[in-house]
Amino acid sequence: MDLARLMTAQGPRYGVVDTDRRTVRPLRDPAGPEHLADLAQPTGSRGGALTSGPSLAPENESVPLDEVRLLAPVVPGKIVVIGRNYGGRPDAAGNLIIHLKPTTSVVGPDDPIVLPDSSHDVRYEGELAVVIGRTCRSVAPEDAAHHVLGYTCANDVTAWDIGTDGGQWTKAKGMDTFCPLGPWISTDLDPAAALITTRVNGEIRQKGSTAQLTRSALTLVSEISHLMTLLPGDVLLTGTPEGSAALTPHDTVSVDIDGIGTLRSPVVATSNSRTTGQG
Amino acid sequence: MDLARLMTAQGPRYGVVDTDRRTVRPLRDPAGPEHLADLAQPTGSRGGALTSGPSLAPENESVPLDEVRLLAPVVPGKIVVIGRNYGGRPDAAGNLIIHLKPTTSVVGPDDPIVLPDSSHDVRYEGELAVVIGRTCRSVAPEDAAHHVLGYTCANDVTAWDIGTDGGQWTKAKGMDTFCPLGPWISTDLDPAAALITTRVNGEIRQKGSTAQLTRSALTLVSEISHLMTLLPGDVLLTGTPEGSAALTPHDTVSVDIDGIGTLRSPVVATSNSRTTGQG
Repeated sequence: MDLARLMTAQGPRYGVVDTDRRTVRPLRDPAGPEHLADLAQPTGSRGGALTSGPSLAPENESVPLDEVRLLAPVVPGKIVVIGRNYGGRPDAAGNLIIHLKPTTSVVGPDDPIVLPDSSHDVRYEGELAVVIGRTCRSVAPEDAAHHVLGYTCANDVTAWDIGTDGGQWTKAKGMDTFCPLGPWISTDLDPAAALITTRVNGEIRQKGSTAQLTRSALTLVSEISHLMTLLPGDVLLTGTPEGSAALTPHDTVSVDIDGIGTLRSPVVATSNSRTTGQG
Repeated sequence: MDLARLMTAQGPRYGVVDTDRRTVRPLRDPAGPEHLADLAQPTGSRGGALTSGPSLAPENESVPLDEVRLLAPVVPGKIVVIGRNYGGRPDAAGNLIIHLKPTTSVVGPDDPIVLPDSSHDVRYEGELAVVIGRTCRSVAPEDAAHHVLGYTCANDVTAWDIGTDGGQWTKAKGMDTFCPLGPWISTDLDPAAALITTRVNGEIRQKGSTAQLTRSALTLVSEISHLMTLLPGDVLLTGTPEGSAALTPHDTVSVDIDGIGTLRSPVVATSNSRTTGQG
């Protein structure tokens, strides 16, 4: 099942994307990731769960996806970024490396990545994102899946010439628009072998599989839950394959994950008419 | 004016602390930092502003402070921590050093700091915290005060033996209970010369004045707003004076700021009956 978040006349709503991925049925009532967690169960009747609670009842009418504005599929409480997690990278290290991105960096599908004046080396980093569905603290790896709502595409946009030499990753990774997420949360994805392809202006720049991860997505949920409590809606970015490079204005960058879909972001220079975070 | 957040029979509410700081009048309706920002205006009639909007009307009855449970005075969207910002410290540096603490690290007055099994060097760091009241992006230092709701006491608890050698400040600073905030937000404090005293079991361990800050609180609001949008409720921790040292179970650590009050935290070893964040 794919859970999108979209703008409706009643405000932001989750919606269930139809299996042809051309239409979406918004839920009648507002719901957050904590309400949707039952849908992410690997066993049980999803259709049944969806219609049993009134707050999770979808509208009868499907709306074409190209007629709605999709929002970032989650408004996270925190975004944990994992560094150097691809086996193929020369700097793959033994220790878990984590940083945080502020929630103001989040934008949705088709929202622009805004290049700040202060950097000339803003790079794309296509990644699989884990969306937490149930509160967890110190969970074992074999129990981690129960706490995951699903998976989405992420771009861990990073200004490599701002503070990274001094370990100032908060500056490098924390600017507004530096965390595109979307297009939706896929609850059925197998995170152990998902193919990630990043394209710039249609040209393939990164190609990897989560099978290459030094730490798997579920291992990360477990390890990070031993450091800090993970809440519904929290997001973990699992690391990026080789091939990250600088973006320039007027580029379009897309992160595609087999089994989820494509997260597209136009790239623009700083302007005052920008999209703010939390979208 | 001092704005506390407390648990009431109707759920968490802001309240106005009476001038004797012994009683508090809860607001009748739920309000967030964005609603309270008008109260933080350096000019204008605060009493008038407080009673003009129905949602900001306080109850007529004052409740004794020692009969209520005070909560962290804000549920931040993000917590930006500033490193090496005291002129008296030998490592005072030219570059702005920032990290993020996750919101799950926040606890309120009298909530315990839980020492994890994984660390044997968890240190207190008493600090002045800025609470943002109005959204700001790229504000000038002279306009920063307009975007501040007020100030509170913070303890930037840090596990110095976890990852700090590799710059892994997210691990060191990000654990649950590692961000005590409170006891309330003081809107009238002059942040340019506030005296900070940290005590452990009643003994003075840190003593400083924000007059010693390399970057003032308002300069920090401006500089950080050039890196990322600051939203109402966001918190900036402005740096700690000399004298930080390790805590042990059964300690009580308190951060006192002249003009605000005292933030007290008992220290306990890891247990399952802990207070969760977001309190």
